[in-house]
Amino acid sequence: MTTEETIDGEPREQSGEETGESGDDESATRPDGGGRDEGDHDAELTHVDETGDVQMVDVGSKPDSKRRAVARGEIHLSSSTIGAIRDDEVEKGDVLATARIGAVQAVKHTWETIPMCHQIPITNVDTDFDVREERVVLTVTVETTGKTGCEMEALEGVTTGLNVVWDMVKAAEKDDAGQYPGTRIDGVEVVTKEKRAVEGSD
Amino acid sequence: MTTEETIDGEPREQSGEETGESGDDESATRPDGGGRDEGDHDAELTHVDETGDVQMVDVGSKPDSKRRAVARGEIHLSSSTIGAIRDDEVEKGDVLATARIGAVQAVKHTWETIPMCHQIPITNVDTDFDVREERVVLTVTVETTGKTGCEMEALEGVTTGLNVVWDMVKAAEKDDAGQYPGTRIDGVEVVTKEKRAVEGSD
Amino acid sequence: MTTEETIDGEPREQSGEETGESGDDESATRPDGGGRDEGDHDAELTHVDETGDVQMVDVGSKPDSKRRAVARGEIHLSSSTIGAIRDDEVEKGDVLATARIGAVQAVKHTWETIPMCHQIPITNVDTDFDVREERVVLTVTVETTGKTGCEMEALEGVTTGLNVVWDMVKAAEKDDAGQYPGTRIDGVEVVTKEKRAVEGSD
Amino acid sequence: MTTEETIDGEPREQSGEETGESGDDESATRPDGGGRDEGDHDAELTHVDETGDVQMVDVGSKPDSKRRAVARGEIHLSSSTIGAIRDDEVEKGDVLATARIGAVQAVKHTWETIPMCHQIPITNVDTDFDVREERVVLTVTVETTGKTGCEMEALEGVTTGLNVVWDMVKAAEKDDAGQYPGTRIDGVEVVTKEKRAVEGSD
Amino acid sequence: MTTEETIDGEPREQSGEETGESGDDESATRPDGGGRDEGDHDAELTHVDETGDVQMVDVGSKPDSKRRAVARGEIHLSSSTIGAIRDDEVEKGDVLATARIGAVQAVKHTWETIPMCHQIPITNVDTDFDVREERVVLTVTVETTGKTGCEMEALEGVTTGLNVVWDMVKAAEKDDAGQYPGTRIDGVEVVTKEKRAVEGSD
Amino acid sequence: MTTEETIDGEPREQSGEETGESGDDESATRPDGGGRDEGDHDAELTHVDETGDVQMVDVGSKPDSKRRAVARGEIHLSSSTIGAIRDDEVEKGDVLATARIGAVQAVKHTWETIPMCHQIPITNVDTDFDVREERVVLTVTVETTGKTGCEMEALEGVTTGLNVVWDMVKAAEKDDAGQYPGTRIDGVEVVTKEKRAVEGSD
Repeated sequence: MTTEETIDGEPREQSGEETGESGDDESATRPDGGGRDEGDHDAELTHVDETGDVQMVDVGSKPDSKRRAVARGEIHLSSSTIGAIRDDEVEKGDVLATARIGAVQAVKHTWETIPMCHQIPITNVDTDFDVREERVVLTVTVETTGKTGCEMEALEGVTTGLNVVWDMVKAAEKDDAGQYPGTRIDGVEVVTKEKRAVEGSD
Repeated sequence: MTTEETIDGEPREQSGEETGESGDDESATRPDGGGRDEGDHDAELTHVDETGDVQMVDVGSKPDSKRRAVARGEIHLSSSTIGAIRDDEVEKGDVLATARIGAVQAVKHTWETIPMCHQIPITNVDTDFDVREERVVLTVTVETTGKTGCEMEALEGVTTGLNVVWDMVKAAEKDDAGQYPGTRIDGVEVVTKEKRAVEGSD
Repeated sequence: MTTEETIDGEPREQSGEETGESGDDESATRPDGGGRDEGDHDAELTHVDETGDVQMVDVGSKPDSKRRAVARGEIHLSSSTIGAIRDDEVEKGDVLATARIGAVQAVKHTWETIPMCHQIPITNVDTDFDVREERVVLTVTVETTGKTGCEMEALEGVTTGLNVVWDMVKAAEKDDAGQYPGTRIDGVEVVTKEKRAVEGSD
Repeated sequence: MTTEETIDGEPREQSGEETGESGDDESATRPDGGGRDEGDHDAELTHVDETGDVQMVDVGSKPDSKRRAVARGEIHLSSSTIGAIRDDEVEKGDVLATARIGAVQAVKHTWETIPMCHQIPITNVDTDFDVREERVVLTVTVETTGKTGCEMEALEGVTTGLNVVWDMVKAAEKDDAGQYPGTRIDGVEVVTKEKRAVEGSD
Repeated sequence: MTTEETIDGEPREQSGEETGESGDDESATRPDGGGRDEGDHDAELTHVDETGDVQMVDVGSKPDSKRRAVARGEIHLSSSTIGAIRDDEVEKGDVLATARIGAVQAVKHTWETIPMCHQIPITNVDTDFDVREERVVLTVTVETTGKTGCEMEALEGVTTGLNVVWDMVKAAEKDDAGQYPGTRIDGVEVVTKEKRAVEGSD
Repeated sequence: MTTEETIDGEPREQSGEETGESGDDESATRPDGGGRDEGDHDAELTHVDETGDVQMVDVGSKPDSKRRAVARGEIHLSSSTIGAIRDDEVEKGDVLATARIGAVQAVKHTWETIPMCHQIPITNVDTDFDVREERVVLTVTVETTGKTGCEMEALEGVTTGLNVVWDMVKAAEKDDAGQYPGTRIDGVEVVTKEKRAVEGSD
């Protein structure tokens, strides 16, 4: 019966995931991919079951853990647009405030935006914008106490927050042909992902 | 009165936008940013009014036009993950099918994801995945007949579609420390943005 | 290029659909399936493109038409539950009022519930409950002026409205083992689907 | 005061529900409705309070339990459509993959689709499509650890999943008059509903 | 047949509404209620049909008009909170920027928040906050080109915007007992409602 | 690092909130605002961090508590409209039933309507309408077991419920000029807010 298979299938996948996540090194240090399992593909695509059909991961037997994920990305903008944002920031900060709110809302909506995501109780969202030469770097930190990680929430916060910045500066970035020759979102990555037992709270 | 100001303020911004968008060159050729107006910042931040407060752009006096926007981006993955997606694609394509649906839904939800976006009638969404060496390139084309462009819809489709791919291959991409050393979304940009009068239909 | 193909592909599908829908007989009379094309499957799955990938149908070149769809379905309930609903109806009608509202909301949300549906401007929704012996029959009529039909909206209204009835009478329908031996939703079908040119308005 | 009454009213209903659900027979065997209480209607309509007004059920004093519900339903299609789905399934499975995703999303959205439902943490969703002669049978299993059952979530998954199948094969099912003479959703029912104390985990 | 009745019923209601809205006086001057029809109740509850069941109003035969509605309301706050908002406004304006975005989003979501509302294309939203002695006054202007008015959208913008202000200053407004003795939302009303034929555009 | 600051910042704010909410007086008695802290504004705007940027409050280290909030508000209507609602209430109650459902849905959607709100598990919602001379008073009670209060949920229930009443009686309230001279929402306030340790359950 499908459900049996699913239950049978999960522990293997889960224990694998546990191993990964309960490793000693939970810092943001970035080992090369050597550790990445080059083995059976089917075991790796945890959202695809034995018969290859898409599915949610069964988290029913996972314990609640304190989880934290940090994602980061940047948007390249013209220096004149950066100037407008800076002035704005000094005076009102509405551009970044709007992007901040868009990012927080995207984090909370990840369970419906990413089809196979579970809905988890978000306990904290922190958004940090760094306005630099010709780019804005957004770092989003998400914390939850739940049965599954929150890196997708952090990634959704970053990509949506950067898209909101783009939307807010459209007229400033468009050239005479109505195109965006210099606007680009780059370097969207998960900086770090951590998991702690609920007992071992900070 | 605030509304008067808004109405007064719009034509200036709109005519500027019209100029930009009705330019001869509507192709995807990418002129350098020279054409970008280096002038008054306030005029450029069309989502911020005279007093610096965030606002939607008034599109009430804009005509309906046939609009089309194409956005593109890519996600860098390990060769083993690419292999899993390829095998999958041949057999079922569920990973990309899920990302495809996530992208289409994101396009339709842009009006609520991007705070200052208007809701526009999407007439067509096309998603094209190109699975290459160690990366998947997603191109999203959005078409609408409305009063405002759809590049934000195309960008939301690209970033969400790539996030869904990430979600589907999480276990395959994580290293032994549960981190994502090699996973990264890059090169998210608007390939082209076009506008045609409804009369001059193709 | 994918978009070209899509555009090339659509007219064939669309004209086919036009033929179907502009036929003389738009009444609810139910001809046998003989008319159903037994031919090429690819041409029939309009949400799957030439390469078999899921997609929305391009409705950009379709004219706005006045469209109307009627769907119907029923839920089988115990006579005691029917009695409770009847008494309720006489006194307050809250059970059916709740189902009515659930049905209307489902109609309006079809564009996000059914992944490949377009968002269309719903101009009218009519819900009609017929409380009979051991069943409640729900008929939902949806009207729109747009580029695509609204039968999915009517079907979503019927299935959701009947599910709301089920939710409202859960305690009454459950047996001593907490099961629903006699509760069942049946006969969900599209009664009729009509399309009129906007010019030829009533 | 209304709230007192509500609190007074609940235990009676809840204990009744407990009795029902903690019964020995939790299997899918279908006893006749004899066990169904033919008594006071007001006590049975738990979403309607003493004064007949619609309300949510107060679950604040219910313990968290591991709950599982299985619902099933089918859509009748022409043999040519079944053929198209089969071919598709072999090649890409996009039709069923789309329906699968629509079903999972519907399960997660039940708290807003069914007005009086609570939002519960879904831990697992399993969708199983069985493509038979002239019909597709969809079985959806939902698991949660919470204060209330998840049969409405399973039912929403089934009806929405079947509606998505309908949407994906519209052009194939329509006859020359644009009607659906042979398409029908039938037999939507709750196969089984189970509840286990959190302590007694599998 | 229910639909006939609905269609029969509409013109009476609509013409009545037309009469009301096409009156000479469309300014914000507030005549006394003398003009209010004291007659048949059934004719007045346009969301309740002849049999008393809730329904949407059929707007299918209504022409598109340019519509504008202005709503206003205020929240009473302590002088210390007003001071915090003022300082904030000078420095960043994040409190009001958040309320502004909450108001705009609420306007766009009115079609799902108010069960019987239609979804209409919002062309402009303007939010104006006036920070006074111990209160903040919010005025929201909504413009649309559609078949039905937008006063509900303006009202949703005002009440939600004021609720967001409340949420942002919770800790400042709570007394030692965790209560809100002085916080209150008052005077929520529709300042004016206008309608112009699309032909006779400004 | 931003997150550290956030964590450093929270305890001060939280303990302050604890003090407030764990005070002896949890009744609805309304002490004068004397207890309200007139001190440092930054400490009071808990949704704005040290650098003045909007943020969610970190509730990760807060214990789960049983929380209850009661909010109340009223809408002023003409006596003829009140008559229509009364007659309606006796016969079907659809106007108030619709407002009731709108209020419950608004309570459940507060986490997305109010940008900085967390999503909390609502265990009970009670709506009480009191139809009086020329006004309807709505009282909404919300209960949750979570890490943060639910007064915003109760307020959203009240303002949305009253807006739904307005929407249902629009035609009855409009004067000959299509204006609402006598319709007004007033007195929206939090009647009481309570918190109990989960151990000390009722």
